Amino acid sequence: MFILHERLKADTLEITRLELSRVLLMNDSAFPWLILVPEREGIREIHELNEKDRVLLVEEMALASRVIRQLYMPDKINIGALGNLVPQLHVHVVGRYAADRAWPGPVWGAGPASPYADSERDSIRERFRKAFPDKKQSALSQPLRQGEQGAQ
Amino acid sequence: MFILHERLKADTLEITRLELSRVLLMNDSAFPWLILVPEREGIREIHELNEKDRVLLVEEMALASRVIRQLYMPDKINIGALGNLVPQLHVHVVGRYAADRAWPGPVWGAGPASPYADSERDSIRERFRKAFPDKKQSALSQPLRQGEQGAQ
Repeated sequence: MFILHERLKADTLEITRLELSRVLLMNDSAFPWLILVPEREGIREIHELNEKDRVLLVEEMALASRVIRQLYMPDKINIGALGNLVPQLHVHVVGRYAADRAWPGPVWGAGPASPYADSERDSIRERFRKAFPDKKQSALSQPLRQGEQGAQ
Repeated sequence: MFILHERLKADTLEITRLELSRVLLMNDSAFPWLILVPEREGIREIHELNEKDRVLLVEEMALASRVIRQLYMPDKINIGALGNLVPQLHVHVVGRYAADRAWPGPVWGAGPASPYADSERDSIRERFRKAFPDKKQSALSQPLRQGEQGAQ
């Protein structure tokens, strides 16, 4: 049974669920910033996933990158799997601009987040949701996900 | 024809070449820090690689992680593909310790490197080389690599 880490839950808005990962939007309007969390309990490192899941992960990283590129046309995508503070494996996919607050440094540790206003959360979430392909069928084929639906 | 970016060349020691990536060791004795550079000209982002290369990349990321884990037993592996300063796609794989200089922050932008002493470079390179599987046969099966050997 997969349980999302408290800190990830508190800092993000949920966008969708892909075959491997839950897709979260970092609640920081300073950057278009997605977080992929593979729904595998007890995994801290990419190399701890099995080969099939690693392939899913890199494809989902590429998908999240393309979504950010399509919606925001950033100058660069930054990808990172750190986990020094939150051990549950999660991968950041962040659109960067040469004019953003942290450029050319990394976004991690670059100061406090600027949360989205309450009034814009629904629309930003909807914007991202529409950009991800509908994968309900693929999700339904995975028994683990079905057992989990009540928890959200 | 793949040409390694000048900055990556200047900051690292070459360890080996895998099926997709050149494996470099960051010349910073503060962290066990490998850099994978896919030998594909003109690629800046992971999602720009084709699917086959993305799968190779995630497997090589996992391999580099296991090598660092085996040699250094770090508390955590950090993986990052940033490229804000060096546009050529490259992936950092870094062993982290709760007692290291930058913990729990990222290593990128965490101050100047502490280069390995001249006297220890050969042994550290050898240590890493021995930890990677021998892949000469796989390299020989790729015509692109053969044309390149004179350039190193």
